[in-house]
Amino acid sequence: MASSPKSLKPAERVAIQQQDVWSIINEAAAESLIQPVANMGQGFFDYNPPDFAINAAKDALDRVDCNQYAPTKGRSSLRKSIAREYLLSFNRELDPDTEVTVTTGANEGDEVVLFEPFFDQYISNIEMAGGIIRYVPLSAPQENTLRTSSAEWTIDFKKLNDSFNEGTKMIHDVLILSDEVYDRLCYVPFTRTATLSEEVFSHTLTVGSAGKAFQATGWRIGYLVGPDHLIKYVAAAHTRICYSSVSPLQEAVDVPFDKANQVGFWDYSQREMKRKLDMFIQVFDELKIPYSYPEGGYFVLANMASIKLPEDYPFPLHISSRPRNFKIAYFLIRELGVAGIPVSEFYKEQTTVAATNYLRFAVCKTDEVLEQAKTKLQQLKKYMV
Amino acid sequence: MASSPKSLKPAERVAIQQQDVWSIINEAAAESLIQPVANMGQGFFDYNPPDFAINAAKDALDRVDCNQYAPTKGRSSLRKSIAREYLLSFNRELDPDTEVTVTTGANEGDEVVLFEPFFDQYISNIEMAGGIIRYVPLSAPQENTLRTSSAEWTIDFKKLNDSFNEGTKMIHDVLILSDEVYDRLCYVPFTRTATLSEEVFSHTLTVGSAGKAFQATGWRIGYLVGPDHLIKYVAAAHTRICYSSVSPLQEAVDVPFDKANQVGFWDYSQREMKRKLDMFIQVFDELKIPYSYPEGGYFVLANMASIKLPEDYPFPLHISSRPRNFKIAYFLIRELGVAGIPVSEFYKEQTTVAATNYLRFAVCKTDEVLEQAKTKLQQLKKYMV
Repeated sequence: MASSPKSLKPAERVAIQQQDVWSIINEAAAESLIQPVANMGQGFFDYNPPDFAINAAKDALDRVDCNQYAPTKGRSSLRKSIAREYLLSFNRELDPDTEVTVTTGANEGDEVVLFEPFFDQYISNIEMAGGIIRYVPLSAPQENTLRTSSAEWTIDFKKLNDSFNEGTKMIHDVLILSDEVYDRLCYVPFTRTATLSEEVFSHTLTVGSAGKAFQATGWRIGYLVGPDHLIKYVAAAHTRICYSSVSPLQEAVDVPFDKANQVGFWDYSQREMKRKLDMFIQVFDELKIPYSYPEGGYFVLANMASIKLPEDYPFPLHISSRPRNFKIAYFLIRELGVAGIPVSEFYKEQTTVAATNYLRFAVCKTDEVLEQAKTKLQQLKKYMV
Repeated sequence: MASSPKSLKPAERVAIQQQDVWSIINEAAAESLIQPVANMGQGFFDYNPPDFAINAAKDALDRVDCNQYAPTKGRSSLRKSIAREYLLSFNRELDPDTEVTVTTGANEGDEVVLFEPFFDQYISNIEMAGGIIRYVPLSAPQENTLRTSSAEWTIDFKKLNDSFNEGTKMIHDVLILSDEVYDRLCYVPFTRTATLSEEVFSHTLTVGSAGKAFQATGWRIGYLVGPDHLIKYVAAAHTRICYSSVSPLQEAVDVPFDKANQVGFWDYSQREMKRKLDMFIQVFDELKIPYSYPEGGYFVLANMASIKLPEDYPFPLHISSRPRNFKIAYFLIRELGVAGIPVSEFYKEQTTVAATNYLRFAVCKTDEVLEQAKTKLQQLKKYMV
């Protein structure tokens, strides 16, 4: 092994800090003696995108232009499809040339107000760009019932108000980044932020994800829509970060947008995901473990406060040094063979005790995996107070 | 159109400055009255990747795991293939887990010494990351002959030496980023920087590109290899910028690496590209336009000093305000229907007069396009001094 140059110090923003939650959970799952682990951790699908999307990708691979650099803003046909997709829900025509831009995934800042729980990637996205984050927590519902709704989580408006200052670029007078990557998986009517008013539209960037829409998280095709005076800067940043996004898969997403409407894919995938949710949460109903049922997306948050862990359980240091739900997650992986994600990782300032008891389960998995997970989770009875 | 919030000011690093050379040339080509324009500007292929690569991509699209998030460092099988690919030319075994990382394209700084001519993306890549650039020019050869070699360009070693200071992170005692994306298209024996010594290896990150290797620039699969103490920071930055790279196309690149060796694809593509180079430069031999013939890659630089432009030619302001070779490029597009790229754009400090006369032509085009370009360029006779 080559020796490290002594004088080399990495920039602070790339110096490796704490291990991220995904690596911790995936490693624990790989090492568990109970295999296979029903992995409901990361939100990837363990079934394929629809055939019409796969076939569109294969067709694109046969076309010379689709295998070469796409325009940095995204292929023109895809931008038109996206503009068309937003026509109804935005109730306005977006200019595909100036109000839509295609990104590599949906991951691409200054002073930023961020709601907790957040998607942990946001932190590094903002900090890499030199941004400062002000955190505003969403509070978990008071659990008078076993089942609560994601709609019952409440914003601390005083804290939100106090977060505004001269340096705040997002929120305040300035800019809203509305992450709507689950827009096709909503179980109640959904109001897009940008449609609240003309004033709000002019301040809002809406993020979408073809990977989420078409069950193809590995395709890394995201997009942003918004007023031209905001999109132009996003497009400029994207050009300088990734240059352009994967060309054949842009084409492979363009065609399915049309097709999805024709064959009723949106209704189908929404119905299917709701069925998976309803099927999975039965185990929590039965065990009387309180959970938050989502109004959109595919994550169930379960409150594991009632689980009593054996006092002498040998947790490794990188687990025992973290909030209680890391221990629960680790224990479930090792002893039951089910993986979920500790929600405390999506909070920076752990003001809410509740967050340290929640585990997140992704139901975008085959029925077989979900049934396995339910059977395994039944064993929690032994560990309940 | 929504009105722009008055108080919104973009961060300086994404504020749009001068129009980039690619947009200028592409727009001029689209507006030219002589169609089709033989577009030898941007270095994308106008023919397809080899069938075995296309087929591997299609096969990958049928596999559930290939359509979902790839590991942030890249798919394990691809990292192993890359390590194997470098075994011979590096004459050392690379650890696929710690000394190889996969990126989105090959575009992903502090104080940096950069050779001119550079690839213009570097500037924004470095500046977006807050880096400061010190430029060191390569000087064009003294043209005693019509044909010179890319090997005859010389480094100003005094300037290189003077560029070193305490803040210089690249070069000096610290870090070499060796862009070797044309490693499969070399017409003379090629020494990889990292192989110069053990000391140099420990300071070097080598960049490769599957898009260049397999004629698929739109697939956006790049990779870096180097010692684990450097790769770990690159991998950390990549995770925070793009999260992971496109999964099915990583698989689609993994298989072809093996196949390419079996079917002799590297020799074939190198021979083919050399044939295209030799075929294209005939027109400069004939016109007695001096040119620099590459030892690797697919760009020919032609010195257009002898072309006399009509004095009253109506150049638009965004062309006339730039160095002389922008005018030549524009004139060739409008009057002859051939597009090349003004090399001055790849210099920041235009110390060399030569650079303002050079145009770059990419020969990674079909024979038909190359023949068209040659025929069109014959007309330059009319404009030669």
